[in-house]
Amino acid sequence: MRISINDPADPRLDDVRDLNRSDNRPDLPGGRGLVIAEGPLVVSRLMESRFPVRCLVGFPAKIDAYLAEHEVPAGLPIYEVTRETLAKVAGFDMHRGLLACADRAPAPPVAEILEKARTVVVLEGVGDHENIGSMFRNAAGMGVDAVLFGNGCADPLYRRVVRVSMGHVLRTPFSQLAGTRTTWQRSLDELRDAGFHLVSLTPDAAAAHLADALVDPTGAAYERVAFLVGAEGPGLTEHAMRATDIRARIPMAPGTDSLNLATSAAIAFYERERSLR
Amino acid sequence: MRISINDPADPRLDDVRDLNRSDNRPDLPGGRGLVIAEGPLVVSRLMESRFPVRCLVGFPAKIDAYLAEHEVPAGLPIYEVTRETLAKVAGFDMHRGLLACADRAPAPPVAEILEKARTVVVLEGVGDHENIGSMFRNAAGMGVDAVLFGNGCADPLYRRVVRVSMGHVLRTPFSQLAGTRTTWQRSLDELRDAGFHLVSLTPDAAAAHLADALVDPTGAAYERVAFLVGAEGPGLTEHAMRATDIRARIPMAPGTDSLNLATSAAIAFYERERSLR
Repeated sequence: MRISINDPADPRLDDVRDLNRSDNRPDLPGGRGLVIAEGPLVVSRLMESRFPVRCLVGFPAKIDAYLAEHEVPAGLPIYEVTRETLAKVAGFDMHRGLLACADRAPAPPVAEILEKARTVVVLEGVGDHENIGSMFRNAAGMGVDAVLFGNGCADPLYRRVVRVSMGHVLRTPFSQLAGTRTTWQRSLDELRDAGFHLVSLTPDAAAAHLADALVDPTGAAYERVAFLVGAEGPGLTEHAMRATDIRARIPMAPGTDSLNLATSAAIAFYERERSLR
Repeated sequence: MRISINDPADPRLDDVRDLNRSDNRPDLPGGRGLVIAEGPLVVSRLMESRFPVRCLVGFPAKIDAYLAEHEVPAGLPIYEVTRETLAKVAGFDMHRGLLACADRAPAPPVAEILEKARTVVVLEGVGDHENIGSMFRNAAGMGVDAVLFGNGCADPLYRRVVRVSMGHVLRTPFSQLAGTRTTWQRSLDELRDAGFHLVSLTPDAAAAHLADALVDPTGAAYERVAFLVGAEGPGLTEHAMRATDIRARIPMAPGTDSLNLATSAAIAFYERERSLR
């Protein structure tokens, strides 16, 4: 259903109106806005995701190119707009020229996520959208099964997260740990009960070498591993670390700062794969 | 030598004028502009670097805070400006309020860099400033001794690189390989002659596992290792890879994209450290 729209005020374009605040729409169910995918790769990942797609919007040539390679659900509204019209609606020049919008969907329960997972990552206090996006990209790339959110993390469906994650936030399962009204000890009970070996990532020089933290005393890799990662700068709280089985460090050159948190996590995911070789 | 300047047109502030093009100043020797450090951490790294510092510029309170913790060379011009004045001079609101500027300095010869190095990284065609900055941050963090530039790389002293690298580009030695008029084979001769084991990083599934690429057939870590890394997307040219001893891959989940190049490099640097344990 391709429809050409020339009037920037057309309400059918409301899904992509004022994109810089598109993920904060108190007028929508849940008050948290839509899921926005930009560019053909991320749009295709949104189409294949659990999120109910509402529309596809783009320049005619970009829509042609997309439809030549991908299927879309029958009856999906496809709005053709010029670059000028889209710029007026979105609030800035959207040079990529292709967008898809979806409704949010409830996250799967933690228990369901854990059922088949071997490796997960748990975030504490990660408020930076770019870090969360990179974390999802790295988790997907390295075969991590899920991302779980503890207290104080930013919205993983924020537009910038979707973009930086290259759409992987739409594919890799994530969920919120019961956290705000309980202790880290309790929040992690579900993982502990499921047999996860809980590993805190920390720059602390007294912590175990990452390579040693992922194998049991006989040298065998743990069957299930959950990495806890804190925000860049403050890192994990002592409270969170105390609730884990071991503290692991990535060896750093003396006098340097810690790595970016998504980079640290990527190294941990790599070592995890390596321990299972 | 603290001097308060209120006139945005004052020529003493020319070093920080129009900062968005400060690293492209054909009027300066070499035509490539100054080295700009922003914020106290990076400013302190510039002060300790091989680059001759020209001036320190900032809000009075930021200068006070900096001088309370750091020494500066005697006679260094220190210009106090208000936020408004600095915004007018720099061309945007510089909320960090502290800058230092230095002249460029010639890079050390490759031979000198290689003399004491055990691990280096060689970049091919990396034009993205943020990637180069992250690469330096990761190299410094993981104890890599130097960064060498092959063909087609962006300027490592560009302002954004300095910032993203957290100033490590001012500390970690870097140099340009003889490249434009010769072959990769020849460019790498100097490393080969110095005994470096040359490792191409590639997502190619037929390449060796990274962990296997860094040890000789007896399982011992190579004494000296050079990693070749290409741009995100195209990766290394076949030409460059053919000039190396081995192609190494970081295992990736099926159907995912490759990692960010600085992240891939960080994993390679980690594995290198691990091989030397």
